[in-house]
Amino acid sequence: MNIPRTDLPRVVIIGGGFAGMALARKILKENMQMVMLDRHNYHTFQPLLYQVSTSGLEPDSIAYPLRKITRDDPKCFFRLAEVTSISADSNTIHTSIGDLVYDYLVIATGSKTNFFGNESIEKHGMWMKTVPQALNIRSLILENLEQATITEDPEKRKALLNFVLVGAGPTGVELSGAIAELRNHIVPKDYPDVDPNEMHIHLLEGLDRVLPPMSEHASKKAHKFLDELGVKIHLNTMVESYDGHLVKTNTDLAIKTETFIWSAGVKGAPVKGLNASAMVEKAGRYEVNAFNQVQGYENIFAIGDIALMKTEKFPKGHPMVAQPAIQQGKHLAKNIKHLIRGEKLETFEYYDKGTMATVGRNRAVVDLGKWKFSGFFAWFVWMFVHLWFLVGFRNRTVTFFNWIYNYINYDKAARLIIRPFKGKEETMTMDSDKV
Amino acid sequence: MNIPRTDLPRVVIIGGGFAGMALARKILKENMQMVMLDRHNYHTFQPLLYQVSTSGLEPDSIAYPLRKITRDDPKCFFRLAEVTSISADSNTIHTSIGDLVYDYLVIATGSKTNFFGNESIEKHGMWMKTVPQALNIRSLILENLEQATITEDPEKRKALLNFVLVGAGPTGVELSGAIAELRNHIVPKDYPDVDPNEMHIHLLEGLDRVLPPMSEHASKKAHKFLDELGVKIHLNTMVESYDGHLVKTNTDLAIKTETFIWSAGVKGAPVKGLNASAMVEKAGRYEVNAFNQVQGYENIFAIGDIALMKTEKFPKGHPMVAQPAIQQGKHLAKNIKHLIRGEKLETFEYYDKGTMATVGRNRAVVDLGKWKFSGFFAWFVWMFVHLWFLVGFRNRTVTFFNWIYNYINYDKAARLIIRPFKGKEETMTMDSDKV
Repeated sequence: MNIPRTDLPRVVIIGGGFAGMALARKILKENMQMVMLDRHNYHTFQPLLYQVSTSGLEPDSIAYPLRKITRDDPKCFFRLAEVTSISADSNTIHTSIGDLVYDYLVIATGSKTNFFGNESIEKHGMWMKTVPQALNIRSLILENLEQATITEDPEKRKALLNFVLVGAGPTGVELSGAIAELRNHIVPKDYPDVDPNEMHIHLLEGLDRVLPPMSEHASKKAHKFLDELGVKIHLNTMVESYDGHLVKTNTDLAIKTETFIWSAGVKGAPVKGLNASAMVEKAGRYEVNAFNQVQGYENIFAIGDIALMKTEKFPKGHPMVAQPAIQQGKHLAKNIKHLIRGEKLETFEYYDKGTMATVGRNRAVVDLGKWKFSGFFAWFVWMFVHLWFLVGFRNRTVTFFNWIYNYINYDKAARLIIRPFKGKEETMTMDSDKV
Repeated sequence: MNIPRTDLPRVVIIGGGFAGMALARKILKENMQMVMLDRHNYHTFQPLLYQVSTSGLEPDSIAYPLRKITRDDPKCFFRLAEVTSISADSNTIHTSIGDLVYDYLVIATGSKTNFFGNESIEKHGMWMKTVPQALNIRSLILENLEQATITEDPEKRKALLNFVLVGAGPTGVELSGAIAELRNHIVPKDYPDVDPNEMHIHLLEGLDRVLPPMSEHASKKAHKFLDELGVKIHLNTMVESYDGHLVKTNTDLAIKTETFIWSAGVKGAPVKGLNASAMVEKAGRYEVNAFNQVQGYENIFAIGDIALMKTEKFPKGHPMVAQPAIQQGKHLAKNIKHLIRGEKLETFEYYDKGTMATVGRNRAVVDLGKWKFSGFFAWFVWMFVHLWFLVGFRNRTVTFFNWIYNYINYDKAARLIIRPFKGKEETMTMDSDKV
């Protein structure tokens, strides 16, 4: 790769997600050369992807050009590249655009969708980890509505109007809530030929409550809010297969549907080449110590979803969400500076800022330590926090304006089928989840 | 097609462009059943497509969901469909979703790119008539910059950094100006490895001045502004071929390039089935009388680019731009109401509101009858007029905010490669221009 080798230590970061970006911003303009690699030229604010899927926001509002980070320091570089493997012996990574030597390597490749080995789901389902995938889901929802309008076959129309989401974590809850809002407010106006009562949103969850990572209070309230929006919740229900038309479960429930969205789990997205002992195989994550050093390596670090740091409170590692990733990124910046100065490393402590999920257009559930609340005020907090964490003044402003507009007008501006998804399955498949 | 036949006369409009939309909005809630068909579910504000191509705006800002038009009147319908042919004998159109009988048919299918029979250009070039095409051009520009960053071969880098635009009408002028702004303000910051002096924008024009449809004053000023932005203008230069790598012209000029954008002409996009005598073959447009009735038909109308109305001032028909389309759409609304009431039809008179084109970030040229002006104030007028004609309050606000932001920050927010274009030419070709 044509990056000049200087006297400065070189830090290579694989991945510009929450962890990689938090790290990069803190080591810019320090006494080192930083190289960031990503297979996209933008950072994705994943917590709002569901709004891209449901026509509320355009991608530019929740994405941020990664070159806007590196351009502030002429010693630093961005490269659009896919990393294929690591040769730790020679401190080299291999990528789609050539090899690169590192002094310090940071793996921040995040997570990918976990199908738990179910091939029928991977083949026929949709999922939402990237902007193109979110846009595919948007197109599919709108195309199904268009098709339902002209279909005379009642069985086919039913299948077109059944939307099945699997996994009632924050993604499943927020996405099913947003699709319910589409049904309640957009469909009756835009699709007078479609009977909104024929449109059903099914949310399937293997455990006995929605939002299993959150408090009982949050689960109960979110369940109630979803109920009121008309989302049909099926607890203790595991999907056995989906053949592109019929969902089969471990219960009596079987649903004919053209839209099957899988949000039931993630696993790490590791890079090939490190010792097997560095990996926790089942989770697909690298085991790291309290300094985020990958097990068995001195100069290789992992942060964010891909890192599994066992602590007393989190014996199976931190939750695979934005906060631990951001905090680990910032913390590693400190430690890399220590390393370069020959100082002692500091151990990482996770500060739990709480979790939240929004349900529908104006309600949310929030767990803030012992403080648990829900409803309109929670939604207000949710909105404020998400605007706060969105990167970039422009993104915040455009998103805020769109939210106000959507809120007042019960409208979704971006309901455009830009890239038809249907009938092109062979050429326009879901992007792979690899970094 | 499953549209109920009522006692009301049925008006079918093919195409939701400027003409079709202007007509539809004026006959809504009248004593008739209106059916609008389009192959996209949105109206495209084509004058700003070049800003989507150059990362200044996202599609949702310049597109408008067509169902937002028809939803205001329960008697009216929208269908996402491609019209394949017309059987005038039986008052029927044939579409991708079935047949439809009409009482009055309005053809508003617009225009498509004219390659003047040059197959090499059609095969290897790019053009910009639709949102997906504009997004493809955006991706290609950004991918070329990324590739230029890593290419060691100087010849290849040159080709990646040569941008060739053919045709110095408004599209060619505005697009080349916007790419020059990218080079002058974004490339030096975002791509420190690319020497902006190596990036060249070539604008080729077969005639002896830029903006040939505008005044001499406008041509001269636009030429000067483009010069100052660093666009290389080649007048009296006709492209003979482009093989995907090399542009050959009728002069000594030959340019190696990976980006060849064709904006040198349009022709009508007719539908099959009408009598040959109704068509002006070379223009691809239907000949219409002063009521926009297609030659030889009583109840078939054509409006906008597809209509060729010979008048004293315009013996070859009106210019194929937004204004005549909008005015014909509004006027035909009146005449259709007259027809239904058994009243006399009114002849169409075109009111020339002037033409304008923007060059770069803050200059434009404007011809308003005898009043011709250019520079910063002209740009201000250009901006105001384009915001005014943009459909929808939200679109106006978001566009206005983005312009202010881009203007103050010399920035382009949407520089995201969402759908990589390169290496996928086989599956992701330019959309066909058919309606």
